[in-house]
Amino acid sequence: MEAPAARRTRFRADVLQAFVRDAMGAVGVSEDDAAIVADVLVASDLRGIESHGVARLERFYVDRLRDGLIDPRAQPVTIRETATSLAVDANNGLGHPAAVKTMRRTIRKALESGCSVATVRRSNHFGIAGYYAMMALEHDLVGIASTNAGKLAVPTFGRTAMLGTNPFAYAIPAQNGDAFVLDMATTAVALGKLEIARRLGKPLAPGWALDAGGSETLDPQSGINGSLLPLGGFGTEGGGHKGYGLALLAEILCGVLAGGVYGPEMPDSQGVLDPAITSHFFAAFRIDGLRDAASFKADLSRLLEHMRACEPAAGCERVYTAGEIEAIRTRESLEHGIALDPVVVATLDSVAKKLKIPPPQRIAS
Amino acid sequence: MEAPAARRTRFRADVLQAFVRDAMGAVGVSEDDAAIVADVLVASDLRGIESHGVARLERFYVDRLRDGLIDPRAQPVTIRETATSLAVDANNGLGHPAAVKTMRRTIRKALESGCSVATVRRSNHFGIAGYYAMMALEHDLVGIASTNAGKLAVPTFGRTAMLGTNPFAYAIPAQNGDAFVLDMATTAVALGKLEIARRLGKPLAPGWALDAGGSETLDPQSGINGSLLPLGGFGTEGGGHKGYGLALLAEILCGVLAGGVYGPEMPDSQGVLDPAITSHFFAAFRIDGLRDAASFKADLSRLLEHMRACEPAAGCERVYTAGEIEAIRTRESLEHGIALDPVVVATLDSVAKKLKIPPPQRIAS
Repeated sequence: MEAPAARRTRFRADVLQAFVRDAMGAVGVSEDDAAIVADVLVASDLRGIESHGVARLERFYVDRLRDGLIDPRAQPVTIRETATSLAVDANNGLGHPAAVKTMRRTIRKALESGCSVATVRRSNHFGIAGYYAMMALEHDLVGIASTNAGKLAVPTFGRTAMLGTNPFAYAIPAQNGDAFVLDMATTAVALGKLEIARRLGKPLAPGWALDAGGSETLDPQSGINGSLLPLGGFGTEGGGHKGYGLALLAEILCGVLAGGVYGPEMPDSQGVLDPAITSHFFAAFRIDGLRDAASFKADLSRLLEHMRACEPAAGCERVYTAGEIEAIRTRESLEHGIALDPVVVATLDSVAKKLKIPPPQRIAS
Repeated sequence: MEAPAARRTRFRADVLQAFVRDAMGAVGVSEDDAAIVADVLVASDLRGIESHGVARLERFYVDRLRDGLIDPRAQPVTIRETATSLAVDANNGLGHPAAVKTMRRTIRKALESGCSVATVRRSNHFGIAGYYAMMALEHDLVGIASTNAGKLAVPTFGRTAMLGTNPFAYAIPAQNGDAFVLDMATTAVALGKLEIARRLGKPLAPGWALDAGGSETLDPQSGINGSLLPLGGFGTEGGGHKGYGLALLAEILCGVLAGGVYGPEMPDSQGVLDPAITSHFFAAFRIDGLRDAASFKADLSRLLEHMRACEPAAGCERVYTAGEIEAIRTRESLEHGIALDPVVVATLDSVAKKLKIPPPQRIAS
């Protein structure tokens, strides 16, 4: 995904969305669910998170639906429900529709009751956690989303991967459409960073990975064969136990609290997971349960502007706030199109061929 | 605080609690509030977090109450309240009673309504965040606590401190009194680590601190004069933007959401803060809103045991789970007494002398 701009091909966001909808329709997904998948995947590309966008359409979704690993027609079932909580079983359907439908209900409950929490079990990979947290923004709610995932991350003092990259996302609205949107894996870096280093023949940075024997490694292939270190790095010196703690927190709030697959039963993973092993966690609460929402949003905008304007360190351009770069990227991509790597474009063409649907139209350069 | 065991003096926990109660009473704090302060401070020492325990009694609390910086008789006032939310103004009272009383009400609301959130503004330093999150454990709730603090931490790409060490604490109950308790500052390390390095004449580790000019430094004094790096270290390579994101999240949920002092108005700090500038955030939710609590706790115990039993890396004894070491330490300290550093013991004797109360009785060695 590190191809320079010149080698990339541009697509309009609505064209990519229509293509994803067509592809999902061709493998038996309902129109409503297909639209959700399209929106979530393309939102990821718009935000510049190419790893979680249409790049995954073929391998994570189309192929797995065609192979019968994910049920295209699954309907999420409510397991438990109160005015402030909701537990859902996704019945091995796609992660995105199960997550969007659950977050919609979580938001409705928060609007009615002030705050709410929800879990989804027996789901599949749901893309970027930030999408679901951000659904809360337009309602003046704080939104929270998390998911567990296949084992890639090693616990502090451990030898092998025991936890997923287990992200947390928090979305909080500011004024005039501005927002704080933190969407972070609890590992120091994603597996993709190791793959890029391998392709470029560069060493890893310290604090990224262990080899299969449990020793820290700077060799990309050894790291890929080994495990990812938690945010904070190796041991406890740089706070690695905090990243590990956050990863285990996600495993508890998602896998255990959802009554889904967790810990001991989670399969090893290099990205693609066994079906129905993923669990999610969502929460939302009203800002105006605590103070006037307009005043809050004005103060948050002031804080965000204050951070952005603070003096940068030598050699640094400026300070950003969480989600700001992604928001800038989204505006650029909506104007000029989404620039996809040739490898990703090839997978879209492959999907078109497999499913006998027209490939997405390029923006003429 | 790095004195070897041989140079330490042991005290019974209940003796230290009684001493803190006497000291608080002598400076005008009510019996109920004094009991809360005593319980929170000694809980910190019991858990082995000596930096946040009775070590702070003199400088953070007794002196500031005597100097009129904190109001010993302040009563927290409710600013806004619903069935699921609560906003409190601490009126420049001690942080611990304001936090305990607010968390008690947060818990009651969560028990009645399923989940709840709360803020406290115009408060003071409240000790360990984990104490308040842990209040949820006996009720089969998930408990969350956070606070902002004076500026010590630099944002990613920034030059100077703009945020506090802004901790988050999460407490989740497992079986038979076991629990997951994550209580973490969002910086890589606490300021105390730099002070210890200075005392020992040792260099800092990379990823800990910037000097006053905004460059990374391994020199303890330069770091103390500069700022702390976020969890994940310098720049974005090791995920420093994630630690910075979590610190800013705490600033938003505490300072901004509480309607308290935040960001631009927060004073610089090397530990002791201006009065009434601290804000806190609390949340709690019922486990059984999502699944049967007993099954959840059994599964969580299974996950915790699974992590603890996993294969350690070469040279590592074993893997721990968040809060486990603190729980072990608490059991040991309850049995054998709390071992305090000579520097801390001297401050207790100083408090006794100042307030004309008996110093805490040592355990005969």
